[in-house]
Amino acid sequence: MPATIRAAAPADVGAMHALMYELAEFEKLTHLFVGTPEGLADALFGARPAAEALVAEEAGKIVGYALFFHNYSTFLGRRGLYLEDLYVQPSQRGTGLGTAMLRALAAIAVERQCGRFEWTVLDWNQPAISFYEKMGATVLPEWRVVRVAGEALERLATPAEQPA
Amino acid sequence: MPATIRAAAPADVGAMHALMYELAEFEKLTHLFVGTPEGLADALFGARPAAEALVAEEAGKIVGYALFFHNYSTFLGRRGLYLEDLYVQPSQRGTGLGTAMLRALAAIAVERQCGRFEWTVLDWNQPAISFYEKMGATVLPEWRVVRVAGEALERLATPAEQPA
Repeated sequence: MPATIRAAAPADVGAMHALMYELAEFEKLTHLFVGTPEGLADALFGARPAAEALVAEEAGKIVGYALFFHNYSTFLGRRGLYLEDLYVQPSQRGTGLGTAMLRALAAIAVERQCGRFEWTVLDWNQPAISFYEKMGATVLPEWRVVRVAGEALERLATPAEQPA
Repeated sequence: MPATIRAAAPADVGAMHALMYELAEFEKLTHLFVGTPEGLADALFGARPAAEALVAEEAGKIVGYALFFHNYSTFLGRRGLYLEDLYVQPSQRGTGLGTAMLRALAAIAVERQCGRFEWTVLDWNQPAISFYEKMGATVLPEWRVVRVAGEALERLATPAEQPA
């Protein structure tokens, strides 16, 4: 039986958090993974949700998830749909589940009149890039992500010293 | 007198929209600019805001703006602050206004306990990259933005044909 894709529910948070850790392991980034199930529950189902999610369920087990939120383009004057994470367990790969989840997200984007559906990919991940391009996606060659975090963010937030 | 940085108000929408068009001209992308003042007003001040903005005002005139929204990192389990647009009119450049706006945004990010403050830059814009790096920002070399829009998005959203 193929997996069913549906909106995440509060009862899915534990399973989703476990899959997020699996994704961090796959990316060899567990040392950067500090998210908790409680934080995830609050982000998805708290008073001010920061994100939404789809899950893929097979035989009562959560085998994949997609976490997304909206961005906004001043050029388009419209919201976009931004996919933060897409993860499918190794046992489910090659079943078309990843494609089905991307299609489900595209349908949400169209239904909500979003101008764009976007995510990021590592430039060395050619199999993923080819897969996305086959689906009609474009990889933007020129844009780079700029990030300020941790102590650098604290410093930037501190008012500049005034000249004496 | 240096410009004052403050939260945007509904009365600023017309001036902000004009600056957005100036930014599109600077980027030689006016053919892609389809946003309207009405759409911007709804995005910033409607029932379900999609973004927030700061403006820089000098002698009663809006001379710059920053438009931002929140993203979310499952790794950090926290929201981030994402800067979509930062624009300062040519007449105001070199006054430190851009830096002051980035500092004001960083302060908002810290106050809201955001894990990151992020934006994007064109890889050939070395003056901007050097400026950001001097402020403590890191340019992520490996990530590329993937985008599906227009007809490709409509196609992706359409259920795949079933085998006969």
